[in-house]
Amino acid sequence: MKTFDEISEIVSLEMKKLQWTSEPRGLYEPIEYVLSMGGKRIRPVLSLMACNLFSDNLEEAIAPALGLEVFHNFTLLHDDIMDKADMRRGKPTVHKKWNDNTAILSGDVMQIASYQLIAKTNTVYLKQVLDLFSQTAMEICEGQQYDVDFEMRDDVGVDDYIEMIRLKTAVLLACALKTGAIIGGSNNENAQLLYDFGINLGLAFQLKDDFLDVYGDETTFGKKIGGDIVCNKKTFMLIKLIEIAQGNDALELQKWLGISDETKFKDKISAITTLYNKLGIKAKCEDKMHEFYTKAVANLDNLGILDNKKQELRNLAANLMFRNN
Amino acid sequence: MKTFDEISEIVSLEMKKLQWTSEPRGLYEPIEYVLSMGGKRIRPVLSLMACNLFSDNLEEAIAPALGLEVFHNFTLLHDDIMDKADMRRGKPTVHKKWNDNTAILSGDVMQIASYQLIAKTNTVYLKQVLDLFSQTAMEICEGQQYDVDFEMRDDVGVDDYIEMIRLKTAVLLACALKTGAIIGGSNNENAQLLYDFGINLGLAFQLKDDFLDVYGDETTFGKKIGGDIVCNKKTFMLIKLIEIAQGNDALELQKWLGISDETKFKDKISAITTLYNKLGIKAKCEDKMHEFYTKAVANLDNLGILDNKKQELRNLAANLMFRNN
Repeated sequence: MKTFDEISEIVSLEMKKLQWTSEPRGLYEPIEYVLSMGGKRIRPVLSLMACNLFSDNLEEAIAPALGLEVFHNFTLLHDDIMDKADMRRGKPTVHKKWNDNTAILSGDVMQIASYQLIAKTNTVYLKQVLDLFSQTAMEICEGQQYDVDFEMRDDVGVDDYIEMIRLKTAVLLACALKTGAIIGGSNNENAQLLYDFGINLGLAFQLKDDFLDVYGDETTFGKKIGGDIVCNKKTFMLIKLIEIAQGNDALELQKWLGISDETKFKDKISAITTLYNKLGIKAKCEDKMHEFYTKAVANLDNLGILDNKKQELRNLAANLMFRNN
Repeated sequence: MKTFDEISEIVSLEMKKLQWTSEPRGLYEPIEYVLSMGGKRIRPVLSLMACNLFSDNLEEAIAPALGLEVFHNFTLLHDDIMDKADMRRGKPTVHKKWNDNTAILSGDVMQIASYQLIAKTNTVYLKQVLDLFSQTAMEICEGQQYDVDFEMRDDVGVDDYIEMIRLKTAVLLACALKTGAIIGGSNNENAQLLYDFGINLGLAFQLKDDFLDVYGDETTFGKKIGGDIVCNKKTFMLIKLIEIAQGNDALELQKWLGISDETKFKDKISAITTLYNKLGIKAKCEDKMHEFYTKAVANLDNLGILDNKKQELRNLAANLMFRNN
């Protein structure tokens, strides 16, 4: 079996082999740009790791795994237009560096390219992998729409939020794992357990991301701390805070939520973080993360394969959970 | 064999059966809206007609045929954002009725939905149909990019233009025909002849569209006459005119190309049309149309099936060619 590092290396090399040299350049250059920015490549890595649980031959799982990474980057590209985000991974976003039209059309091409990679799946598994991918892609769009809708809504509960991040983030991790398992020759039960592991890991992963937005270290996190706070992003923590805050705390919270003046952002971040600490929201978020992480580990425990084969995925889950960036 | 009208009726009924009732409504409502606007449904009709040349059972060809129509409408949706078009088929476009973000995301969902319909192809043909579809989808995006690029370029020749409309328009008609043929059980030769028929028909079809923009009857064409002229759209006719006009005609042309003042649009349309007539551009466009139409008819002639089976496609080609709207 290959280690996480060995599989990461394979993914990194294979991503670089993808060719985006066709004409017209105005269409393919932005794709090259986006995919050369890097990122954790966590989806294809998970996919190959899952395949490796059942097969020593990873070859057939590579193309669909890359398809998932291309698709993920496509969603970032289109999301960045919708969110009017200027920067991604320390570089200007495509719609900033080029323009909205380029970002729309290059994104469309990336979506097609991801299907072309998925279509390289062994025909024995093609229908199953393709349907799983399309359903997942659809759910990710639904998640994005809920995310947009939630900004305008005042009645978003914790369960709504969890369902939104399940769709927007977790299902693609789950799909990556299940796709690798299918291609590796897994039975349905194990493939489903890996899917569930992906859902629980994805939920824990996103909650950790929200957590790091408040409690992370700017030098390692790679994004500005408090980005979610200044724009009143309805994360698990803010939803909980709105639910729990009473009396003066509620008044204080309302005051800061009303502030969109950039010169007061530092104070806003500091004030809301103080409320998170005071009302136990920090602990609640950690509990929730831990709840999903525990479920994910249980999914792995239940996998019907030799226990020592599970170690790399266990380590990966722990690393994602206890990361600081 | 079924007639064109019978197949149109099937397509119309089957399109209405597609369900867009999922949540979140903000995502699916615009799709329902776009697909209820109607249109000629020429792509699925061609696909089923091609299938019907080889098989009496159209059932298996229906889902992929609808997939092509959903994909076509997806491209219109995203193109309308890029072109900042306010109206489509007499109704406000999605990005006008809702907003750009909705139009981007609903379009993304339509692209996935079209793949879901393509994926319903009998697994025997799935890989072949899927790869043809993805390649076609990619080419359509390339065509759209060339179209955008051409607006900024001064050196676009007639061959560039033909290649652009081949990609943007013709390949999807060709793909529709070939997809139907494959599912109907055609051999490779006949499937390829139908593909070529689609290319030639598509080129003639687009030239006819450009022609009707100048010489059509506003009451039947459904669009304002001269729309391409006022925005200096580099159609076959304008490219030819720029190439041919000399002396005073060239000066006259340059003057009108420089005019973007709405109050002078009527005069601009009239002046450029006069130049088209005077310099024989009208006839050149008709000749070019006829050239492709003749090739398309020859492709049909070469099809290795009973001649009387070809009559419905012959009639359809003639109707598209000699239409006034």
